[in-house]
Amino acid sequence: MRFTSEQRLDDGVLEREFTLGGVPGILWTPGAAPAPLILLGHPGGLRKMYPRLVARARHAAAEGYAAATIELPGSGDRPRSAAAEQARADLRRALRAGEPVADEIVDRLVLPLVEAAVPEWRAALDALLALPEIGGPVGYAGGVIAIGIRLAVVEPRISAALLFAGSFVPRALFEEARQVTIPLQVLLQWDDEGNDRQLALDLFDAFGTKEKTLHANMGGHTGVPQFEGDAGNRFFARHLK
Amino acid sequence: MRFTSEQRLDDGVLEREFTLGGVPGILWTPGAAPAPLILLGHPGGLRKMYPRLVARARHAAAEGYAAATIELPGSGDRPRSAAAEQARADLRRALRAGEPVADEIVDRLVLPLVEAAVPEWRAALDALLALPEIGGPVGYAGGVIAIGIRLAVVEPRISAALLFAGSFVPRALFEEARQVTIPLQVLLQWDDEGNDRQLALDLFDAFGTKEKTLHANMGGHTGVPQFEGDAGNRFFARHLK
Repeated sequence: MRFTSEQRLDDGVLEREFTLGGVPGILWTPGAAPAPLILLGHPGGLRKMYPRLVARARHAAAEGYAAATIELPGSGDRPRSAAAEQARADLRRALRAGEPVADEIVDRLVLPLVEAAVPEWRAALDALLALPEIGGPVGYAGGVIAIGIRLAVVEPRISAALLFAGSFVPRALFEEARQVTIPLQVLLQWDDEGNDRQLALDLFDAFGTKEKTLHANMGGHTGVPQFEGDAGNRFFARHLK
Repeated sequence: MRFTSEQRLDDGVLEREFTLGGVPGILWTPGAAPAPLILLGHPGGLRKMYPRLVARARHAAAEGYAAATIELPGSGDRPRSAAAEQARADLRRALRAGEPVADEIVDRLVLPLVEAAVPEWRAALDALLALPEIGGPVGYAGGVIAIGIRLAVVEPRISAALLFAGSFVPRALFEEARQVTIPLQVLLQWDDEGNDRQLALDLFDAFGTKEKTLHANMGGHTGVPQFEGDAGNRFFARHLK
């Protein structure tokens, strides 16, 4: 892990960009150390997502959490995958035509992403937990929900996850969802234009954990109300001790 | 409104029993006055419900809210209705037999209750708001959800409602739900033995308000997690200004 830039934000949060095995990322740390860590999931494209990510990181830092994120495979400045681009084009075509999105398109789009991204998140976790300013338990917050599910199953260092049910989930991941045993809070945007509400409810039902809460709010994909940031902090306060 | 008993609880909350037109009720007020008011809905039977009601009232008082509740028609020490007892017996019989509960049973059980209870809650509100220790906006919190729906539609002094989707809702109330425009937070117990999950989701969808949030948690009817008490206080803090 190599830090490539560093700036102090006006609320005292230290923001550092880093690169790890060719994967760019950002780490935000609050004043007090060692801080518990929240991994910030997102749909890819760090530059485009930066305003929302830094807002979430500052919100978490105000409660004493460090936050970190990495770029997804095939997004931002990282090399594109021809197969993923083809799957994305097929998805867009189906959505434009108002057709149901075939399972095989979702599989082609999401499964390779999960396979590639999860080891990178775990490698980032290795490096982050080796820093003296990071300590204590780890949470995962955000989309891509399929990545969150896989991480929750395979990564024992993640103690709780706040998952955003706002993206397509391959059928195979429903089976993995049954194996999740850590506490979950699941966010659902009731009128999410690019998301199947019933599928999200079925997924919530499928999670194997006993401690799971669904928060459904009105509005579209990007309309998650601001108070859910506070609700997320309180969820992590209960579980990242 | 006539106060019939008064005691100071150990956390300084003043608990007073009252009677109003033959309807018994309880009022809890915090130290500071005038306090905004939360009406505590419940399934009937003040004596049986007292431990849970006083816990909710103390939790609200800790955030500066007064809380009040009244007995439901046909519950506690109030005269029984033969028609309601018959409907309740028919409901129990259907549930014991594992049969779907016919709409007409739900209508016979719930519609007369709503018709009788809502004017009593409104009369209680008149009397409570005339007290110097009560001031500012009013919220409704709890079941019976059909009573909460009707109150939210007809009572302009109620500014926000936290509804517990844990009881049968007549089809006619779905139409009224579309007319609700105040902010709502709806609690759903995912595995509520006496409640139809899909019906509760349909009801949440039907509410006409733009600001509505569903909190679904695991477990049965009485298993609402303690942290939902805090979440309820924060919901009211946003809307009872």
